[in-house]
Amino acid sequence: MFKIPEHQVAGHQAKDGILGPLIDDSGNFYKPLQNDERGSKEIAFYTSLSSDPRVPDNIRRYFPIFRGTKAINASDGSGLQPHLVLEDVVSSYQSPSVMDIKIGSRTWDPQASESYIEKCLKKDRESSSLTLGFRISGLKLVTSSKDASVWQPGRKFLQNLAANDAKLVLSRFVSSNVASNDNIHPDCSFASKVFGGPSGILEQLLELKKWFEVQTIFHFYSCSVLVVYERESLMKGSSSSGAVVKLVDFAHVADAKGAIDHNFLGGLCSLIKFISDVLEAPVENGICNNYCSKDEH
Amino acid sequence: MFKIPEHQVAGHQAKDGILGPLIDDSGNFYKPLQNDERGSKEIAFYTSLSSDPRVPDNIRRYFPIFRGTKAINASDGSGLQPHLVLEDVVSSYQSPSVMDIKIGSRTWDPQASESYIEKCLKKDRESSSLTLGFRISGLKLVTSSKDASVWQPGRKFLQNLAANDAKLVLSRFVSSNVASNDNIHPDCSFASKVFGGPSGILEQLLELKKWFEVQTIFHFYSCSVLVVYERESLMKGSSSSGAVVKLVDFAHVADAKGAIDHNFLGGLCSLIKFISDVLEAPVENGICNNYCSKDEH
Repeated sequence: MFKIPEHQVAGHQAKDGILGPLIDDSGNFYKPLQNDERGSKEIAFYTSLSSDPRVPDNIRRYFPIFRGTKAINASDGSGLQPHLVLEDVVSSYQSPSVMDIKIGSRTWDPQASESYIEKCLKKDRESSSLTLGFRISGLKLVTSSKDASVWQPGRKFLQNLAANDAKLVLSRFVSSNVASNDNIHPDCSFASKVFGGPSGILEQLLELKKWFEVQTIFHFYSCSVLVVYERESLMKGSSSSGAVVKLVDFAHVADAKGAIDHNFLGGLCSLIKFISDVLEAPVENGICNNYCSKDEH
Repeated sequence: MFKIPEHQVAGHQAKDGILGPLIDDSGNFYKPLQNDERGSKEIAFYTSLSSDPRVPDNIRRYFPIFRGTKAINASDGSGLQPHLVLEDVVSSYQSPSVMDIKIGSRTWDPQASESYIEKCLKKDRESSSLTLGFRISGLKLVTSSKDASVWQPGRKFLQNLAANDAKLVLSRFVSSNVASNDNIHPDCSFASKVFGGPSGILEQLLELKKWFEVQTIFHFYSCSVLVVYERESLMKGSSSSGAVVKLVDFAHVADAKGAIDHNFLGGLCSLIKFISDVLEAPVENGICNNYCSKDEH
């Protein structure tokens, strides 16, 4: 009944006897509750989100639906363990292409322990978090459903991209020729259908941005933007990409104490700028040339 | 010929034989060039700003005019020393009210030395920079031009404000009853004329924000927003506040390397939210009640 999620691209993964999330066939995602305060913080966040009238309806849809907690047999064989029951946000996709982007140049709450802050600060400095305001935690793209081949860059590579390489990865994420060799420029064939349009990724991020400019409820440390779309249908000529943005991972959400989440907002704006650039890049000879452009305007 | 600036509220001040900025009667502000790379960085920034065609004209006016460098007798008696010659942004005011707000939750460039980073990080954590995304570095408000009395809170107090206290200070900055005792609610009499209106502080900050959402030229670490207005004329019933925003202090500006300045932008958005809140707070019985409100929307 419970399976290891095929499309999880970041975080602990339930394989080789490790504790990680599980899914079922009914569209549920079971996330092991961490024993320490991270588990209780994540429950507290979802509970607060569900009941807080200050969270507008148009914003709620950016969060996975929360279905309570349940004890199920954990993936590490340790027997019945409490899990968060969440909406499996990719369950409705035939073959989801997924990118996990951890937002914010700082992943630590000022109230965290010194040892935790030290660990996070080191990671933030060693990754693109500090320079770009976000780091790509994982990415998986099904390049062919026939033979189930995927493009899945290594995590170390993804997490420490310079600006030009981040643009390149974001461009390849929405290109039809990603399977070709590395020297071929990404064609950005799907950019307008995935990133663009009235219901595309950019519009969704801009809607979130508007909320982050005013919300003084939560500060989201170490939270990710998950970008999902149905690549296979676009390859077959469909005009609908099913592109969605979801926010995930709330083990480090803190009370906003009266200020907006300037750390998350700054990183979100940086991501928005990159995605706008990919979208607006002039296309020459069918080749998207944004990532090698030296112009800055 | 050279004088100690009366309205400087932050940074090293030229008194008691200390090295600090000087002004003259022609509207020039002479800032001692720091010997280390800070001095050369600030010159490089002003030179680049003057000549870079990517900086739009509407944005240039937020920076003091740069008039080169000049050797003048330093305020510490050390003889002729090189100084930056800048526009004295308060020289045209009869009696300027000034607030200096250091923007960004992080005041250090990732490329800085370890010891400098450590020092800044400590200060950022001990101040409101980390929590609010900015810290008020100084504030001086002439409450009566007759006897030259001023309201000038201590720096330690200003730099570590919680959200509610930051709202209170920003409210008092635009209130007529600031001279009264601390228990009296600020009336926010001047809020609409200083923070509001088509040429008020909020609109200026929003124009800057638009630029920061797209500019990938500079990262401004440890840079301040200076807010200036003519309080005395408002006290006398004038409708013009002369409110202006200027960006100052560029000794830690770094190359953006392809990403927006998410750190500055986040802090700027946080300040914008506070100023919007002061402006939008309902006024009851002529008393501005925003700062003691517990509501969050």
